[in-house]
Amino acid sequence: MAGTATDLQTLKDLATRIRIHSVESTTLAGSGHPTTSSSIADILSVLFFRTMRYKVSAPRDPSSDRFVLSKGHAAPALYGAWVENGVVAAADLKKLRQLGCDLEGHPTPRLNFIDVGTGSLGQGLAVAAGMAYLGKYIEEAPYRVYCLIGDGESAEGSIWESVNFASHYGLDNLVLILDANRLGQTQPTMVGHQIDIYKRRLEAFDFNTIAVDGHDIGALVQAFDAAASVKGRPTAIIAKTYKGRDFPDIEDKENWHGKPLGGETEKILKHLKGLIRNQGKLKYNIPPPLAEVAPVSINNVRLSSPPNYKQGQMMATRAAYGNALVKLAETNPRVVALDGDMSNSTFSEAMKKFGPKNFIECFIAEQNLVGVAMGISCRDRTIAFVSTFAAFFTRAFDQIRMAAISQSNINICGSHCGVSIGEDGPSQMALEDLAMFRSVPGSTVFYPSDVVSVERAVELAANTKGITFIRTARAPTAVVYPNDQVFEVGKALVPISSNKDQALIIAAGITLHESLIAAKDMAKAGIHVRVMDPFTIKPIDKQGIINNAHQAGNRILVVEDHYPEGGIGEAVLSALAEERNIIVKHVAIPRVPRSGRPADLLNYYKIDAKNIVNHVDELLKK
Amino acid sequence: MAGTATDLQTLKDLATRIRIHSVESTTLAGSGHPTTSSSIADILSVLFFRTMRYKVSAPRDPSSDRFVLSKGHAAPALYGAWVENGVVAAADLKKLRQLGCDLEGHPTPRLNFIDVGTGSLGQGLAVAAGMAYLGKYIEEAPYRVYCLIGDGESAEGSIWESVNFASHYGLDNLVLILDANRLGQTQPTMVGHQIDIYKRRLEAFDFNTIAVDGHDIGALVQAFDAAASVKGRPTAIIAKTYKGRDFPDIEDKENWHGKPLGGETEKILKHLKGLIRNQGKLKYNIPPPLAEVAPVSINNVRLSSPPNYKQGQMMATRAAYGNALVKLAETNPRVVALDGDMSNSTFSEAMKKFGPKNFIECFIAEQNLVGVAMGISCRDRTIAFVSTFAAFFTRAFDQIRMAAISQSNINICGSHCGVSIGEDGPSQMALEDLAMFRSVPGSTVFYPSDVVSVERAVELAANTKGITFIRTARAPTAVVYPNDQVFEVGKALVPISSNKDQALIIAAGITLHESLIAAKDMAKAGIHVRVMDPFTIKPIDKQGIINNAHQAGNRILVVEDHYPEGGIGEAVLSALAEERNIIVKHVAIPRVPRSGRPADLLNYYKIDAKNIVNHVDELLKK
Repeated sequence: MAGTATDLQTLKDLATRIRIHSVESTTLAGSGHPTTSSSIADILSVLFFRTMRYKVSAPRDPSSDRFVLSKGHAAPALYGAWVENGVVAAADLKKLRQLGCDLEGHPTPRLNFIDVGTGSLGQGLAVAAGMAYLGKYIEEAPYRVYCLIGDGESAEGSIWESVNFASHYGLDNLVLILDANRLGQTQPTMVGHQIDIYKRRLEAFDFNTIAVDGHDIGALVQAFDAAASVKGRPTAIIAKTYKGRDFPDIEDKENWHGKPLGGETEKILKHLKGLIRNQGKLKYNIPPPLAEVAPVSINNVRLSSPPNYKQGQMMATRAAYGNALVKLAETNPRVVALDGDMSNSTFSEAMKKFGPKNFIECFIAEQNLVGVAMGISCRDRTIAFVSTFAAFFTRAFDQIRMAAISQSNINICGSHCGVSIGEDGPSQMALEDLAMFRSVPGSTVFYPSDVVSVERAVELAANTKGITFIRTARAPTAVVYPNDQVFEVGKALVPISSNKDQALIIAAGITLHESLIAAKDMAKAGIHVRVMDPFTIKPIDKQGIINNAHQAGNRILVVEDHYPEGGIGEAVLSALAEERNIIVKHVAIPRVPRSGRPADLLNYYKIDAKNIVNHVDELLKK
Repeated sequence: MAGTATDLQTLKDLATRIRIHSVESTTLAGSGHPTTSSSIADILSVLFFRTMRYKVSAPRDPSSDRFVLSKGHAAPALYGAWVENGVVAAADLKKLRQLGCDLEGHPTPRLNFIDVGTGSLGQGLAVAAGMAYLGKYIEEAPYRVYCLIGDGESAEGSIWESVNFASHYGLDNLVLILDANRLGQTQPTMVGHQIDIYKRRLEAFDFNTIAVDGHDIGALVQAFDAAASVKGRPTAIIAKTYKGRDFPDIEDKENWHGKPLGGETEKILKHLKGLIRNQGKLKYNIPPPLAEVAPVSINNVRLSSPPNYKQGQMMATRAAYGNALVKLAETNPRVVALDGDMSNSTFSEAMKKFGPKNFIECFIAEQNLVGVAMGISCRDRTIAFVSTFAAFFTRAFDQIRMAAISQSNINICGSHCGVSIGEDGPSQMALEDLAMFRSVPGSTVFYPSDVVSVERAVELAANTKGITFIRTARAPTAVVYPNDQVFEVGKALVPISSNKDQALIIAAGITLHESLIAAKDMAKAGIHVRVMDPFTIKPIDKQGIINNAHQAGNRILVVEDHYPEGGIGEAVLSALAEERNIIVKHVAIPRVPRSGRPADLLNYYKIDAKNIVNHVDELLKK
């Protein structure tokens, strides 16, 4: 039951208290963004103490309205709001930005009231759009989503990807608040206080727009109320604000970005305290969620049936991805695939056919694609699988980086890796994807080499926390493993071995297949080499590599369809860092490749079976 | 002197011939995008045979109008246009997409009429905007820039970053052509043929807009003429087109994306040939440039004066970046810095003060930032240096990847690396930047450890082809080297060594300084360790590492303020891949870090001097 709505003067006082928290905490910390915090204090006060329906007792309850502070550097204001509603202890805020205090410089989900980390600008709206999509289309629940962005960050293209997405899907449960405080870090923003320009742009993307004085509590209350009644499209509230609002001699002035107030602190605090009308504990009412959202389980997700292929059958690894997703979705309806207009190439289209709640078309906008996946997977509501060409995930590296900081559990599948895609040429070839995904903290990187492995990689990914990446290939290759093969994260397989092995080849994907051919050819000539399929490149099977290398002449050849840096070769070398005596010959794609037939390119870049034989010959001389 | 403008029927026939080339070449290749080529054929005909002023004899002449095909998959049509104007041999087009033929699946600058590689969507407009900025503000030349984008790719946020940039700078020499052919790869685009929506959106960003039937030659001619007379803002020509235009039974149909026409080829070619009115050699007139643009030299750029610091003086490496840029600009006015509203943090602001032609403010839009740098550096017209926080270059990884494919010479400086930035927390800490930039083919990665090194790194970068990256740090550290120290790419320095060294520490930036302290402390206790500063992480000084390791007990400790993957540690391990007996202990940041004071964080993540002593102790036991 909602009680009496918090009155306007109380909201104003709460806003002032948020300002006071922002000033005090940043001055104590000796760094931070008090002026940026001040411009949004009134907005936060209205949102957190009048508009938003949420459970203070359970900040991540799935029934509650969501809030994303895209302009993460205004964290002190957000923390101040959560001090005022009692979730954060005021004493903790005095340790802002100190090691061990979860009130970090920019918000992270170490705090139980933060869904995703922010601080790299322009990313929050995609997450919020994902949350809103989840609420409207998957959960069909009445919670609403609020996302506060800065005016400076509205120059980020990612914002416009998300605006487009939100508009296309008519996300009327989403409210974008644009804090137009006029000033960037080094100078005024491009648009400054020309609120009409923002309005016109957002209207052109079919948003309902409301221009408002962002320091007028009554106007803000009305704007949020009005937004709630709009159907069929999202609302943007464009708030004209002042950076350093209510900080005499600082308000609306340049050169105050990201600086604590230092010697000005005392004067400003005195002024702010003088603005408060109701002293002591303020009486406010936070309305509860409109409806309870049922719990869901996203754990222990399994394939509905085991892989069903024939060893030797030719099939591209990418082609098994869709099969595996459908099998997961058959056992758990919360498995959701997202794609960027590539679903017939990545094979996520199988999920599009499976069910309307199991596929989100995100069009050609990879940053928003990844952000939406983060949004739908927040609060453990779905198991998200995102796909496009592996090369194009470079477009979303910053989002992926922030997803790791956000403790997101999202699964990413990149198809069309390496020169083996052939004719389309270098722009479409992923040759740095392993380097990128390996560098993501806590990530798990799968590089399955046949369709049986792909199905198990997808299943394992669904049950693995953090960012997972699955690298699939365009070209058909032979099925290597029986359908009952067991796969584990961090456990390599050894499809060819003997007790006479003179070298160990480590390869995955297309180069595993070329290595198998090479090994068989060499065996006929009496040269025995062992072949290892690492299955996961991170974690890599360190002990497996060392043991097998010891049994195979302490010589390793790594052959990969990837640039030399950061891929399988360096993963193997890292595993061997403290080992003496094992040498590694590493063959990779040494420069920007060209278009050509796949077989021609494998040969030209010396990663086909014939060249592998030569590489082994050279290695055996060392 | 311009002759008589090419008549409309000839332009129509040229368009049809472009379609014929597209169909023939993709059918022969067995892959490619003929339908996507067909939708733009009329636009290309008008541009290349009536509107654009360029020298057929010198496709990259700096005086000529520029054209960027952002929708790179329509390459066959572009190649067809260059066949028709005589630059490409028709016989070569029959080898489309084959290894050895420079007519690749997507355009690359292996062709002398291509400025930048395209094929990753949404990137061309930033490059074109850079070219237009160069023409209008730096060269003050009358050439014009044309950029053709697809409707599907207009969902990429990067397009809107560039639209915003072009509008803000009033680039009236820029014409954006939007090929609204309605169909994406898997389905219709979000906007379809609702041309008014595109018009409204682009007008909201203050473009002059012209909606046109993209297959009406006369209307296209008029539209381009009209665009040329608009002052103070860029023009967008929104062309309503049909995918597969003039391909009976295929035009405007789904499921024809990226497919050669196969069995339909003969029928379509017959139909197309029937459309041509003027048989034989067509008479056209390509107008010459309005003015000759003077040559410039961007080679052998030097600092105007040597570094001028004191050994031991405390100064952040980032602080020397601006000094070095100004010294370069003093000797070559074509040195241009670009920043994303961070110039007072990266110190590129020194260039802003140096001169209006030497600095481009790109606001908070890192994808466009990198694209504009590519644009201004095309045809060797400027030496571009791009800066923001190193972490935020992850936002532009796809652009950087494409810059390498584009053979761009751009220099990138990322400040605020590692946990040593302290309180701002993980979202602002670059900990994967070395992994990212090392994976860029042909890149050079500088990690200067003091201000003297920074100045020389900047100078070397300016004279190094390809993508260079310079990693700078936030915190002040001591000047290590004398002002006359010589630095070379791929040449490590050894600031501490003795003939009793038991181990070699390799470190850079903050960890070099911690290592120097640790080594001095250990020396007092009689344990001698050598300290190496690699200076460039790519190329890494392989022989220097091996030699020094041999002289220091064959034990190496690598300590870095970076995630474990893809950084200094793996660069060192790669150098040692084929070496027996040398072991490496590698210490890096193992997980997403937290906010905290820099010194607290260095200690917490075990990369400070005290911990380095412990790491060496452990290493010596191995």
